Amino acid sequence: MRYATTALPVLTLTTGPVDAYPAVLRGLASPVLYDYDPAFQTTYQRVCETLKSVVRSETVPVLLHGEPVLALEAAAASLIGPGDVVLNLVSGVYAKGFEGWAARSGAEIVELAVPYDSVIEPSAVAEALRQRPDVTIVAACHHDTPSGTVNPIDEIGAVVARHGALFLVDTVSSFGGMPVDAASCRADMFITGPNKCLGCPPALSILGVSERSWAKMAATATAPRDSILSILDWRDAWRADRPFPFTPSVAEVNGLEAALDLYIAEGPDAVWARHALTAKACRAGILAMGLSLWPREERFASPTCTAVRTPVGIDEAALRAEIRARYGVVLSSGRGETLGRLTRIGHMGPTAQPIHAVTAVAAFGGALAALGHAVDVGRGVAAALAAIDAG
Amino acid sequence: MRYATTALPVLTLTTGPVDAYPAVLRGLASPVLYDYDPAFQTTYQRVCETLKSVVRSETVPVLLHGEPVLALEAAAASLIGPGDVVLNLVSGVYAKGFEGWAARSGAEIVELAVPYDSVIEPSAVAEALRQRPDVTIVAACHHDTPSGTVNPIDEIGAVVARHGALFLVDTVSSFGGMPVDAASCRADMFITGPNKCLGCPPALSILGVSERSWAKMAATATAPRDSILSILDWRDAWRADRPFPFTPSVAEVNGLEAALDLYIAEGPDAVWARHALTAKACRAGILAMGLSLWPREERFASPTCTAVRTPVGIDEAALRAEIRARYGVVLSSGRGETLGRLTRIGHMGPTAQPIHAVTAVAAFGGALAALGHAVDVGRGVAAALAAIDAG
Amino acid sequence: MRYATTALPVLTLTTGPVDAYPAVLRGLASPVLYDYDPAFQTTYQRVCETLKSVVRSETVPVLLHGEPVLALEAAAASLIGPGDVVLNLVSGVYAKGFEGWAARSGAEIVELAVPYDSVIEPSAVAEALRQRPDVTIVAACHHDTPSGTVNPIDEIGAVVARHGALFLVDTVSSFGGMPVDAASCRADMFITGPNKCLGCPPALSILGVSERSWAKMAATATAPRDSILSILDWRDAWRADRPFPFTPSVAEVNGLEAALDLYIAEGPDAVWARHALTAKACRAGILAMGLSLWPREERFASPTCTAVRTPVGIDEAALRAEIRARYGVVLSSGRGETLGRLTRIGHMGPTAQPIHAVTAVAAFGGALAALGHAVDVGRGVAAALAAIDAG
Amino acid sequence: MRYATTALPVLTLTTGPVDAYPAVLRGLASPVLYDYDPAFQTTYQRVCETLKSVVRSETVPVLLHGEPVLALEAAAASLIGPGDVVLNLVSGVYAKGFEGWAARSGAEIVELAVPYDSVIEPSAVAEALRQRPDVTIVAACHHDTPSGTVNPIDEIGAVVARHGALFLVDTVSSFGGMPVDAASCRADMFITGPNKCLGCPPALSILGVSERSWAKMAATATAPRDSILSILDWRDAWRADRPFPFTPSVAEVNGLEAALDLYIAEGPDAVWARHALTAKACRAGILAMGLSLWPREERFASPTCTAVRTPVGIDEAALRAEIRARYGVVLSSGRGETLGRLTRIGHMGPTAQPIHAVTAVAAFGGALAALGHAVDVGRGVAAALAAIDAG
Repeated sequence: MRYATTALPVLTLTTGPVDAYPAVLRGLASPVLYDYDPAFQTTYQRVCETLKSVVRSETVPVLLHGEPVLALEAAAASLIGPGDVVLNLVSGVYAKGFEGWAARSGAEIVELAVPYDSVIEPSAVAEALRQRPDVTIVAACHHDTPSGTVNPIDEIGAVVARHGALFLVDTVSSFGGMPVDAASCRADMFITGPNKCLGCPPALSILGVSERSWAKMAATATAPRDSILSILDWRDAWRADRPFPFTPSVAEVNGLEAALDLYIAEGPDAVWARHALTAKACRAGILAMGLSLWPREERFASPTCTAVRTPVGIDEAALRAEIRARYGVVLSSGRGETLGRLTRIGHMGPTAQPIHAVTAVAAFGGALAALGHAVDVGRGVAAALAAIDAG
Repeated sequence: MRYATTALPVLTLTTGPVDAYPAVLRGLASPVLYDYDPAFQTTYQRVCETLKSVVRSETVPVLLHGEPVLALEAAAASLIGPGDVVLNLVSGVYAKGFEGWAARSGAEIVELAVPYDSVIEPSAVAEALRQRPDVTIVAACHHDTPSGTVNPIDEIGAVVARHGALFLVDTVSSFGGMPVDAASCRADMFITGPNKCLGCPPALSILGVSERSWAKMAATATAPRDSILSILDWRDAWRADRPFPFTPSVAEVNGLEAALDLYIAEGPDAVWARHALTAKACRAGILAMGLSLWPREERFASPTCTAVRTPVGIDEAALRAEIRARYGVVLSSGRGETLGRLTRIGHMGPTAQPIHAVTAVAAFGGALAALGHAVDVGRGVAAALAAIDAG
Repeated sequence: MRYATTALPVLTLTTGPVDAYPAVLRGLASPVLYDYDPAFQTTYQRVCETLKSVVRSETVPVLLHGEPVLALEAAAASLIGPGDVVLNLVSGVYAKGFEGWAARSGAEIVELAVPYDSVIEPSAVAEALRQRPDVTIVAACHHDTPSGTVNPIDEIGAVVARHGALFLVDTVSSFGGMPVDAASCRADMFITGPNKCLGCPPALSILGVSERSWAKMAATATAPRDSILSILDWRDAWRADRPFPFTPSVAEVNGLEAALDLYIAEGPDAVWARHALTAKACRAGILAMGLSLWPREERFASPTCTAVRTPVGIDEAALRAEIRARYGVVLSSGRGETLGRLTRIGHMGPTAQPIHAVTAVAAFGGALAALGHAVDVGRGVAAALAAIDAG
Repeated sequence: MRYATTALPVLTLTTGPVDAYPAVLRGLASPVLYDYDPAFQTTYQRVCETLKSVVRSETVPVLLHGEPVLALEAAAASLIGPGDVVLNLVSGVYAKGFEGWAARSGAEIVELAVPYDSVIEPSAVAEALRQRPDVTIVAACHHDTPSGTVNPIDEIGAVVARHGALFLVDTVSSFGGMPVDAASCRADMFITGPNKCLGCPPALSILGVSERSWAKMAATATAPRDSILSILDWRDAWRADRPFPFTPSVAEVNGLEAALDLYIAEGPDAVWARHALTAKACRAGILAMGLSLWPREERFASPTCTAVRTPVGIDEAALRAEIRARYGVVLSSGRGETLGRLTRIGHMGPTAQPIHAVTAVAAFGGALAALGHAVDVGRGVAAALAAIDAG
């Protein structure tokens, strides 16, 4: 039997959009209130205040009403001005992609790049800042999802803090799945979203903004106003007694509220442990089958995504198609430079369950064998299980 | 008894966000698929092709993943360039608001304005175009929601077509609730959304684009690319075999699919008749209580919204608060120039039910009386019922 | 326009099945767990213990997995044996219907009956018990829904208690909508369900059982065991560490959990006030239109249902059909003896909203007029509103 | 990490209640209509007529509003009378359990029993009927779930048909998951439910009744009337123009409608193939780990459930608890005689996915190892995958 491409898959183990928690789906199905209904305004304020406690930002986070690419573009447009010098830390496709938005603001871009299977060393950041003391903003991507690698963001943040530049951090695919927040990495602009490890659908962005960032945006003449790209317009929108610049995505806010309830009820520590153990089991299984991780060193690998290097002779797209047709399991491709060179198994939100690592390893190995690249699936699964048992 | 401001209201009769159809809420709760899962790509293509048939646009409509203010800003940025002369037809707050986005592109803005309780006459448009034959783009808002007035958009479109300018039309709060589409008004850029008369939550925009508009945008150097504001990036995204520029709002697309199924099953003619009769009954009830409509002439009034002029001596915000506290009914305020001067009763999507007009009239009259402005509620309700019976 | 009979109505103002609260619908959509999964067993116990606190029964209530006719038949079969003398208090169709089940157990049935538009006086019960001191069980229906009348059950319970008979009470359509519970009426077998004033769909029964009733059932040789009709089998099933006699209706239990959360959050007093005011407004409106209530005296009328006597010359079924076709509003017919003679407007759970009384009155009056029985709808609505305002 | 017993599990692979299809959960969340609303009556009729085509019964199936134990008890009470001789075919706990209900009707019960790890041979039935030509009713359980064994029901039905007795068949946990229906096995009373392979929650029963059975029930004086146990009362209730004997479970009927849509859209053949392959893979994996199936011969094993014999020295309850705590996977215990002696892995409805067999095998093996009974999990998973690949 083969799963039809038009039929629902059995298991979506991707890096986003990710499967949503059942309670989030039910939250999305809540009555749609008028945005100026006090019941909704109260909900909105509560959601934002709860976000403040989990994001640990200096000020109440801003919700923007589009998936996090909106937040990244908006942050670049709002925070960066013509006189800025931006140090962009590039260890993957997403960090590199930020350059385009940053450059639009007229700033000078300085790049510190490493190969896309490696990570940024804090010492290299320190050195870069020593060479360019005029850097005003440092931009980093914590988990560069297309590579499945995680930069040591707290340590980098400490370096940036010593230098004094503003620190803009993309934690879209790491926040909620591992211990990172605006305080831990001293971010001035902490950009994330509910659509990865919090288990919501894509449609919202979360921005944790420091007081310094608010001041910088207010002073930046080119910072958007009266625009979907404006962050400044939303500064006080979290308050129940303040207007929204435009209509918020009511249903998605309801979904986010449910996600936060789950996150707090399970406890961040427990959630992170679940992500970490799933990733550990997945890596163990993949390696035991004789396959390679994309990250050059296993310690670079993300707890929210396992990027598997595509074996020589295998067509990556065909491999994923086979996994879906044969087992009903959906995985993610690479992006840009990593497209066709790796497959990503997501461990995010509801899919960060150790047993799913076993399933993913089995499906991966089974499909590889079907494409003529025999691996010892049994060994892989046994290793994944052993990792869980040791967990 | 008083309804708590934090409790769900009984009935949301607003002009948006509107109550969603139950089937739309269930659609939102569907499994969240990976955007590159072929099952989702197929759904996405089907939704867009269905939209083409209901919007009657020349090309397959573009979905943008934010509520329609995104589409309006994006359309201004994409279609309008430095050399353009834009004739902006202003009969209300929303049309006036478009000027800001249009002007950013460097174009010259020519305004044809009428008082906000009136509508644009096609002959005035013809005259304006005669005076400025160099106009390249005409912009109009079909139903300027903050006024509850509807411009004769098909007739205006015919005038614009004779002149040859591109016609950009905002039908966000009219499409789906009355007979208007891209073909009927000859729009080159037909901007609407599922969040009003189609009964979805706010989070998506729909753009029906003519071939001429695609050519103009392609030729406009300032048209956004690699941006949330880009329309061009999404041109082929409806095709199941093409990539998305960024992650679409999966859950909202699922909700839209359900809304389109409902719209087609009930039949647009029947849906429009339902909206029209609700509005007629509502106007009859309001007038019979001795109150005034905001639109100068009843024939200007929208079938999707009844704007009621606030009686002298009444605080409009207090009136709506009283209606909610006393009856659990939520209505919309005015916006900008109309704020505090009118209250809007929405007839959109699931709330466009004639009996809700009766409820709205009763609640409106009851709360007015409670605030010391006695009206004959019985007369109002009887008139509303009579209008339904005549309907 | 006419609403199609196959289309969803706008408003269901019936006496059951009633519209469910949105949160209950979402509860029904929760994941279906294995009944022996500890997570479900824990939920089940919590639901039952919560029921104990709201039903105020001596022991933890029993959930039976069918709508309350199951509970009534099961209670008759379990509690009543061949040697019993049952005093059945009959003020309506449902109380009368209980006789059949009671008689099956071989007991002697003594009837105290009043016309179906009246109620049972406690003094009459005292007198009946004086005449038949050998009565072992008294059965009563608190709110005989087909008549919309409410017996003074607490006072009757006091009389029964003085006598010493077991008291079996059907509060299916009153519990949760007015102040009544097992303690208030001293019920030994308090039979209700979540499908009326708690706002759940029909599928479950709730039985509050006194210690005396448990002893009586245990001693009744004919009490069902190994049967869908067994209550005894379920005695300890509420405990997380005990087995279920058969598979419980998992989804309905999830819905009930949501309903109880709502009931407690709003507060029983507030819920009852909402029901009472809705009924009061409804009665005021009906009477002001010159129509008659079915209950002989207004003080007999239920706060959860307004039974309107069908005017002479009107076909009751045609009237309801007209109300649905014209306004999309669904009301309930009578049953048995009251069928065709009255129409019932339900005020139960989510529909117990004063503004819905206005809507019901308007729709009722409008349809009557359409059928040739002109009434002053305006007067009716004004009276309903005045009742709310006085509320 | 350990999964909390109060937290939702990751995967419910039980034999019922089973996980529901997402579309069924959304169906349950549909508006609850009045049962006499024509829109609901139309839905009810359509559901029953659709059931007729999939059950292939002579007459339109009856829905009873309780899980299938209600149907079994009701069928025994309705079809069997004092003069009957019932041949009860017993190959497991459930068939044996039917004896109690059958005997209540006053019939003589003749038993043909085999060990609970075996199945009934058609020739044995023929022989039993030869010995007792006075048998009027033959009762069988197709898939005796507590044993995971499937009787050759079509062949048995042919034997019964030749004899002329009425044939009562329980296919609760097989129908919808393998090729069996009322026509294939010539059942006169075909009892099943939507709560297993159709992927609904437990709360409804489906009875496919032959004309002969209707005649027999009508002629049976003891057949229940005015009772939850009555089948006769519901004979015409499927018709939109006929009353319901009591209130149907509206939400569950909505869920069933969604389940039937899915079943027909996927196609019964495809659904059955999916179940068969899942079971085959599961058996292969279990056997390859050196474990034993409960069924004496593999060909007796059900395609909807894999019953695994508990290894010596292992506490079965502890094993399932470990599987849940360690992996979040929920399996079923045995029942009655098989309790503690086997564990059941369900392949029913949404869980009948081959990849879930891999997961189940891995979890089973992993937990066994954790309890000190080492097995070669890798070998098991490889065998399961190989079975899928061969599938």
